[in-house]
Amino acid sequence: MGDRPALPVVDVNADLGEGFGVWRLGDDEALLDVVTSANVACGFHAGDPLTLRRVTEQAAARGVRVGAQVSYRDLAGFGRRAMDVPAAELTAEILYQIGALDGLCRVAGTRVRYVKAHGALNNRMVWDEEQAQATVDAIRAYDPALPLLVLPGSALERCATEAGLVAVREGYADRGYTPQGTLVPRREPGAVLTDPADVIQRVRTLVRDGTVTAVDGTEIPLAVRSICVHGDTPGAVALARAVRDTIAAVGASVEAFA
Amino acid sequence: MGDRPALPVVDVNADLGEGFGVWRLGDDEALLDVVTSANVACGFHAGDPLTLRRVTEQAAARGVRVGAQVSYRDLAGFGRRAMDVPAAELTAEILYQIGALDGLCRVAGTRVRYVKAHGALNNRMVWDEEQAQATVDAIRAYDPALPLLVLPGSALERCATEAGLVAVREGYADRGYTPQGTLVPRREPGAVLTDPADVIQRVRTLVRDGTVTAVDGTEIPLAVRSICVHGDTPGAVALARAVRDTIAAVGASVEAFA
Amino acid sequence: MGDRPALPVVDVNADLGEGFGVWRLGDDEALLDVVTSANVACGFHAGDPLTLRRVTEQAAARGVRVGAQVSYRDLAGFGRRAMDVPAAELTAEILYQIGALDGLCRVAGTRVRYVKAHGALNNRMVWDEEQAQATVDAIRAYDPALPLLVLPGSALERCATEAGLVAVREGYADRGYTPQGTLVPRREPGAVLTDPADVIQRVRTLVRDGTVTAVDGTEIPLAVRSICVHGDTPGAVALARAVRDTIAAVGASVEAFA
Amino acid sequence: MGDRPALPVVDVNADLGEGFGVWRLGDDEALLDVVTSANVACGFHAGDPLTLRRVTEQAAARGVRVGAQVSYRDLAGFGRRAMDVPAAELTAEILYQIGALDGLCRVAGTRVRYVKAHGALNNRMVWDEEQAQATVDAIRAYDPALPLLVLPGSALERCATEAGLVAVREGYADRGYTPQGTLVPRREPGAVLTDPADVIQRVRTLVRDGTVTAVDGTEIPLAVRSICVHGDTPGAVALARAVRDTIAAVGASVEAFA
Repeated sequence: MGDRPALPVVDVNADLGEGFGVWRLGDDEALLDVVTSANVACGFHAGDPLTLRRVTEQAAARGVRVGAQVSYRDLAGFGRRAMDVPAAELTAEILYQIGALDGLCRVAGTRVRYVKAHGALNNRMVWDEEQAQATVDAIRAYDPALPLLVLPGSALERCATEAGLVAVREGYADRGYTPQGTLVPRREPGAVLTDPADVIQRVRTLVRDGTVTAVDGTEIPLAVRSICVHGDTPGAVALARAVRDTIAAVGASVEAFA
Repeated sequence: MGDRPALPVVDVNADLGEGFGVWRLGDDEALLDVVTSANVACGFHAGDPLTLRRVTEQAAARGVRVGAQVSYRDLAGFGRRAMDVPAAELTAEILYQIGALDGLCRVAGTRVRYVKAHGALNNRMVWDEEQAQATVDAIRAYDPALPLLVLPGSALERCATEAGLVAVREGYADRGYTPQGTLVPRREPGAVLTDPADVIQRVRTLVRDGTVTAVDGTEIPLAVRSICVHGDTPGAVALARAVRDTIAAVGASVEAFA
Repeated sequence: MGDRPALPVVDVNADLGEGFGVWRLGDDEALLDVVTSANVACGFHAGDPLTLRRVTEQAAARGVRVGAQVSYRDLAGFGRRAMDVPAAELTAEILYQIGALDGLCRVAGTRVRYVKAHGALNNRMVWDEEQAQATVDAIRAYDPALPLLVLPGSALERCATEAGLVAVREGYADRGYTPQGTLVPRREPGAVLTDPADVIQRVRTLVRDGTVTAVDGTEIPLAVRSICVHGDTPGAVALARAVRDTIAAVGASVEAFA
Repeated sequence: MGDRPALPVVDVNADLGEGFGVWRLGDDEALLDVVTSANVACGFHAGDPLTLRRVTEQAAARGVRVGAQVSYRDLAGFGRRAMDVPAAELTAEILYQIGALDGLCRVAGTRVRYVKAHGALNNRMVWDEEQAQATVDAIRAYDPALPLLVLPGSALERCATEAGLVAVREGYADRGYTPQGTLVPRREPGAVLTDPADVIQRVRTLVRDGTVTAVDGTEIPLAVRSICVHGDTPGAVALARAVRDTIAAVGASVEAFA
């Protein structure tokens, strides 16, 4: 790798606990054997309390770190519909979610170790300074030592860094990128990489070269400390394992961030 | 009072944080100047996060202890409709609620200091051993040192005591009692005392004599450590103050339970 | 079959539209090719509006009759947790649900043709006269010509019949029966027949002999006009087809009621 | 009034049925004696079924026309938080709401006679062509003869008119206007006129001159067929009556549209 600074360690994160009541989504237990960080839903876009209790217990038993995946209050839209939530409301909603999950974590013998914004909230905070600041305010009030997963270059990253929070850059194994380095919206073509070969190639360049190929073919720089995989489609768990193997194959080690 | 052991200290509790979004219920700030214990809603029967953040901050600022008022998940019915919730679900739902409120409490510089079951859940646990045990399991898992407000003689009291929890008996200043010592259901006549004079007389005998007069005129023994007042009707705050004065007037002191 | 009156026609019904937002449950389209009556969720236990719009359009396109599967308001519990809903509230909640689905039906070129109570509400109305009457009141107010699927011998059947509604008796292909002819609760052993051979045998005796074998081995009489199949488990659709074939094989014809 | 075409008839509309369960908002019965059109909530931002049943019955008894006040699905935010709802979802959500209310109307002996978008949805459709078209699609599918209240100059008005729907322009008695003729957002100063004298003056110029004074003092033309009053603040009903009297005092008659 010549003079290029090495990217020796990469975290693998995935969304878990995303069922609700009778409805299931993804194979939480299988994913827990793959990831180093589990973004667990907090009840606002998914995650009934019993599901959350189980997944926090399973994560604790395997030593997988739990993060609070906070969201807009939108079960019907799975948190994928951006909402104009006023700052004070959003801060309180995020505190409520972190606290609820942290309570279940304590009972399971662990704690919420980081925060990640889900879906539309995360995408909105690429540019929305007010919501980004409201999210940062919540974390700072709850525990300023909690790291926060961020999209590189986002308003959230800026606000978090300015506030002295630990902002951990993440990249997506299976989502399309625009030439500007943001995610292609789910409603548009190219939003999700469906060919496993593309996913593996994405991870390879992301870890080895610090780049991704955007939907228009542009190669863009993207240095990340964590890679997000998904577990809610057929074959997803096998693909997640392949992602993990790919990271090792290019000479990086798979480890949780601090 | 002859040889009868004195009841020197009485706690005054009330339900707070029972608005939701644009909807308000009761005057939280005024009640916080009256009560020694604030049963704060946790979002399942009432209590949006912003309301809960405000009321926990106000309680902390006044040094009023916050309790988690846990409920069935029933915003549409305000937690007044009993539900057949399986034990594991109920335990997880209660943990979720306590954790959510406790997170907001921590941020406000306080903690959840006790637990009270709201509405139909509390009434159901007069006889439902399974739900009572599920509630006790939640508290034991979260923090076995948390006291629990109970209706005297209830299944909840028995389960809590057997589990080694601190069960604090409470009486109601303005609810009708059956000859068996349970609350008259809200749908039946005599469920609520509407005449302030009746409320004051109730509190007087409750504190001084350890008795209440049931809807049929029977005088029944009821020794309590806490008295619940309500704040959601016109004149309620003034009446709550009168209740507090009455406790003092019969020679007891108004103090929070341990 | 000697002098026994023939049971020439049997309806096959199933629950459809039971996803919610991102969550799916069962294969609606495949089931629509099997059933003669589609019990479509109305949004209270499952069924987001877009799902309901699609399934009503698909049903209309295939000429399958749509029924409103009304429920307690309980997304988190999938309507499987009995609730003490006061009569006036329940009547209004049922009217709301029927109207919502009927609106989508009209737009799809069809109408709500019957009503079925879902899960805990249906089971509760085996004995709860007040809720049964509240349900009957809703149907009578909305359209007294709407038939209602009922468990034979239930309070709902009695109330419906007394009110002059058309009560259509139904049996379950895959649910365990108590010796009293009620369904074994889902939380108890034997609640669901999991062996396809048992399901087929159940349907055979139900249609041919008007009997079912209860969990304790007792043979009980059960004359039904409709048989409920489920589509939310692996192999369910294939089994539903086998049920339909079995009905034909014992000499009955599969036809919608009324 | 010279050559200016007269504005002989003005409708007075208000939002009703905006409680939820135990929570009340405004005095529905009193408002029904003032307005000619009742925008009744449909359960998505407010309006439990029992409340909706009562208000539709009361409206029918008084001969007041009921409109469906459709909203984003956002009880916690009272429909005041704009949401990025995809078109097909929004159309289905609006159909669901209209159908639900229409069912209750039929039972009460009336029908949904028009549609109005609530809060953030209405404001969003000032410029959002996609959501405006989705709303128009819902009405066209449900009943193309249903009129739709619109903000003058909005995308919703354009889409409705192009689709052949009846778009009825409305103005607000107590909301601040920008110089562009849109409503001042609720979070900004001047969003609501709180001085009754300002409200009366607003109505006077609106009806007599077809103009309103914007927050910056600009006088802008605004020709409306309906005026919206509010009933959820102290003194609101009295003010609504004064609005009605003012309309009559400037020589117009108060009559429902269409």
